[in-house]
Amino acid sequence: MRFHVMTLFPDMINSAMNTSITGRAIESGILSINAVDIRDYTLDKHKRVDDYPYGGGAGMVMQAQPVVDCYRAIVKDNNIKNPRVIYLTPQGRTFNQEIARELSKEEDLIFLCGHYEGIDERALELIVTDNISIGDFVLTGGEMPAMIMMDCISRLVPGVLGNGDSSEDESFSDGLLEYPQYTRPDNYEGLGVPEVLLSGHHANISKWRHEMSLARTKERRPDLYEAYIKNKNI
Amino acid sequence: MRFHVMTLFPDMINSAMNTSITGRAIESGILSINAVDIRDYTLDKHKRVDDYPYGGGAGMVMQAQPVVDCYRAIVKDNNIKNPRVIYLTPQGRTFNQEIARELSKEEDLIFLCGHYEGIDERALELIVTDNISIGDFVLTGGEMPAMIMMDCISRLVPGVLGNGDSSEDESFSDGLLEYPQYTRPDNYEGLGVPEVLLSGHHANISKWRHEMSLARTKERRPDLYEAYIKNKNI
Repeated sequence: MRFHVMTLFPDMINSAMNTSITGRAIESGILSINAVDIRDYTLDKHKRVDDYPYGGGAGMVMQAQPVVDCYRAIVKDNNIKNPRVIYLTPQGRTFNQEIARELSKEEDLIFLCGHYEGIDERALELIVTDNISIGDFVLTGGEMPAMIMMDCISRLVPGVLGNGDSSEDESFSDGLLEYPQYTRPDNYEGLGVPEVLLSGHHANISKWRHEMSLARTKERRPDLYEAYIKNKNI
Repeated sequence: MRFHVMTLFPDMINSAMNTSITGRAIESGILSINAVDIRDYTLDKHKRVDDYPYGGGAGMVMQAQPVVDCYRAIVKDNNIKNPRVIYLTPQGRTFNQEIARELSKEEDLIFLCGHYEGIDERALELIVTDNISIGDFVLTGGEMPAMIMMDCISRLVPGVLGNGDSSEDESFSDGLLEYPQYTRPDNYEGLGVPEVLLSGHHANISKWRHEMSLARTKERRPDLYEAYIKNKNI
């Protein structure tokens, strides 16, 4: 999987993605992250990439030219067929595990990170294939949402997760929240561990964990619980 | 506002938060970000912070001791009364602009970033006041969600946004999506700008923008549109 990120802050992307699991996958060549500075593509002699909005209003708007030219360079340099360009915007459909699964099947993904004030609509119309929102909140730019998406999608690319990690996706796959976890010592400041976990009785442990998952999901995420029960009864 | 982040990857936090608007606010002293390495608090001689889960299963679980001791040091060193500790977890309530507004009123916020495999439940019971999820997707750790929350919350702290930025929060405040934005040139590769924006007629521009916001919200986010209309009619 090759990720390409169109941004004004390439350093932010590079430093965050070189950590932990994604960092390992980059080293081993399963993933690559290509953070491209949109500013490198402006034709403005002062290297500006934004200008005042037509019609007035606060804030600046990113211009079409540097964005579109940056996109064209990425597509050409990497020989990308049918480019999938994701614009991070509160206007998009809300990102979730299902979208992550779908996107993990692509060979290349191009992320376009704007300022909150926005990008000239004409650039968006020309190049964007997917508008995606990370949630209903206002952020400074698209960089952090792009990092979140890359982290989530990476985990679904075969070979990125090691054996020790590979069961981690199961939580949202079966639609229930995780049961509580405990590790040594069995007595921490007077607090113990549920007896059943120390019993070595695998069937009982599984049963207890499933019950805890059910109870937590019902309490904390009734929407997921309803969907789970409905699914079970079909 | 003082942010404290309990993490195994403090560098990741520091590099991302020193960028752009939050970076400026840190320089001017309105914000501070204190990324604390949980590993510095383990009593294990090999500096381990995790161990196998009781009851078996894949992955490792972070131990209670380093997490709780790290928390106690942060509270003591910074003289925090009534500490508010946010654990980033798929089990939490879903983060949104309203939660951001509420949290922006605190003087100190402590974020606890776990591995996905989880943290010993006893540590969570001892110190966590708020379980918050960034969305329904699986990530490697809590660092990126914590960064997202800090970015969003920062923008609501008085003085963080400059004059040019300050209207940016309005999008979600009035419950509608943003209208399209355009900037120079008025002809880009044969694509023009809506006439009204070039007219200089402020009332018409406002009307057009509101209509575009309404139409987009109805098309892309019918849930927000319904809520907006309902609100208007009360």
